[in-house]
Amino acid sequence: MTTEEIPAKAKEVRLAAHLEGALALSHFELAEAEVCEPGDGEVLVRYRYLQLAAVMQDLMKPEPNLPMPGYQPGAPMWGAAVGVVVKSNSPDLAVGDLVEGMDGFKEYSAGPAGDYFKLDADAFPSPVHYLTQGPTAYHGMVDIAEVGEGDTVFVSGAAGGVGSLAGQIAKCRGAKRVIGAAGSKAKVDYLVNELGYDAAFDYHDGPVLDRLRELAPDGIDVFFDTVGGEQFEAAVQAAAPGARFALCGALSGQVGDAEGAFPRLDVMTAIVKQLVIRPFATYHTPEQIWAWNSHFAQWLGEGRFVLPQTLVEGGLEAAPQALIDLLKGKYTGNVVVKLS
Amino acid sequence: MTTEEIPAKAKEVRLAAHLEGALALSHFELAEAEVCEPGDGEVLVRYRYLQLAAVMQDLMKPEPNLPMPGYQPGAPMWGAAVGVVVKSNSPDLAVGDLVEGMDGFKEYSAGPAGDYFKLDADAFPSPVHYLTQGPTAYHGMVDIAEVGEGDTVFVSGAAGGVGSLAGQIAKCRGAKRVIGAAGSKAKVDYLVNELGYDAAFDYHDGPVLDRLRELAPDGIDVFFDTVGGEQFEAAVQAAAPGARFALCGALSGQVGDAEGAFPRLDVMTAIVKQLVIRPFATYHTPEQIWAWNSHFAQWLGEGRFVLPQTLVEGGLEAAPQALIDLLKGKYTGNVVVKLS
Repeated sequence: MTTEEIPAKAKEVRLAAHLEGALALSHFELAEAEVCEPGDGEVLVRYRYLQLAAVMQDLMKPEPNLPMPGYQPGAPMWGAAVGVVVKSNSPDLAVGDLVEGMDGFKEYSAGPAGDYFKLDADAFPSPVHYLTQGPTAYHGMVDIAEVGEGDTVFVSGAAGGVGSLAGQIAKCRGAKRVIGAAGSKAKVDYLVNELGYDAAFDYHDGPVLDRLRELAPDGIDVFFDTVGGEQFEAAVQAAAPGARFALCGALSGQVGDAEGAFPRLDVMTAIVKQLVIRPFATYHTPEQIWAWNSHFAQWLGEGRFVLPQTLVEGGLEAAPQALIDLLKGKYTGNVVVKLS
Repeated sequence: MTTEEIPAKAKEVRLAAHLEGALALSHFELAEAEVCEPGDGEVLVRYRYLQLAAVMQDLMKPEPNLPMPGYQPGAPMWGAAVGVVVKSNSPDLAVGDLVEGMDGFKEYSAGPAGDYFKLDADAFPSPVHYLTQGPTAYHGMVDIAEVGEGDTVFVSGAAGGVGSLAGQIAKCRGAKRVIGAAGSKAKVDYLVNELGYDAAFDYHDGPVLDRLRELAPDGIDVFFDTVGGEQFEAAVQAAAPGARFALCGALSGQVGDAEGAFPRLDVMTAIVKQLVIRPFATYHTPEQIWAWNSHFAQWLGEGRFVLPQTLVEGGLEAAPQALIDLLKGKYTGNVVVKLS
């Protein structure tokens, strides 16, 4: 059964060609595809929101150095999206159910019910609350960096999808002082005024190490890094003894000067300080997703957390330009495209 | 009371000038100093063996980046030595007791009994067994890298004072395969034929990464690094998922090209592999010393371990040239100067 009219065809975004050089609209292909009739045990989902992330640029490369499959030319790109079941031939999902799926560069998705994760529509104010990089931020800050009471924390890329959550998680876990770096005055203001960062700075404003020495004179206990490059190198120098480093990305090298993904490690300083350096990936296991969602809902309910999110209008056809803009640092927080 | 004739004066080695540039004999001063009469609660010790270590070169610099005090021009250098109490005004130590002290660039040392650590002369075949870098190798391999059954282990600087012990410790702890890198064919042979390494290579023989891929096709689970530079960078590429890195030094940069102490960290590869990178220093706490000595004695007794040590003859006056030779890679194992 169905409660809405289903079109015969719907839009999807495919990879036009593997990414070499700078990302451009020509790497994407907006196509129309038939909306499939779900088979036995399958459902049809109309996606409402698609999440964008910096990692997608790497997935567009011929051989992405990542723990997940890259995009293939001619095939639809994949990414997390939430939507509503509009047809069901499965006892596991009913029409109207809110679900998350991973083939989100499509307006409609058909597949086995088990390919979709059923969401509790009442847990959050809006479905977009499910489209965050929270599992990564939570796993990194809590399990990897083991942030705790009294810590001085430095988050690079602090206004980004992961960083904008990581700093708030640190505060909620009792960190004494949370410092963020971002790429513009507006983002710096956003960190301090909206996200509860204790201090923030624009990494363009002189050497990062000078800013860290001013803002964390007793040193950094936790470094949550999404940027690499100069910010990683400065954090080693500004670290307190025993500091824990959770490395989640190297965006400075992924989108700019490639050397940013290969910062120099000052081994002797790291030895004297006995740093614990933990590069980590988050596989979004059910445990990781549950840990994040339960704490997120609790902290939201207590008024201690805000959802840093940019909602891009314009439907699926707006997604390619929005991804380009995301990588240029145009947005703050998690970036979600509202599908039509 | 005393059982041997004590001279009025004895030799000591002082730092002549802070080290800038290449280490040379001119940085050392061989001097004669009065042999002090021990005061109340003090003892006089005649040192018999002095341990040399690569870190001494760093201690000669104006501002060593190390967790211990550097040497001062005009003052005696310090280092671990074992000797025998020859005069005692303390109830805690008796004439004839074997002790370890830290002001070992002297033939005679006087000071409070508490400045010397009493050794069990029967625990080991010879007093020189106490002069190893075992606490560092043991702490790094066991506590930091958590080596265990089935691990494939790579040790850089494997013929050196720390590395020559680290590989044997890994084998004794059940590692499946231990691979060492060293700087000459003779050292490579020594590793395999004398120290029980499963495989070894000369790091001059082509890219280190090629050798690692040949010798550890399934990847490295543990990397014990004393060298830094290319060997660190290659180990990241050759690491298995979840590999643990214990970083104990960066000798390639400490004695050669300074960049060796600042290797590039390939952040994205480290993230995908979820490496655990732990630079560490060993403070030779009583627990660390005890942990090493007890296992060392046990493994020696079981015939599973050899003491890799070079004994340099010629008395204290031979120590400066021996330290220069050590840093040039002339020796294998722990280097000890036999005092006259």
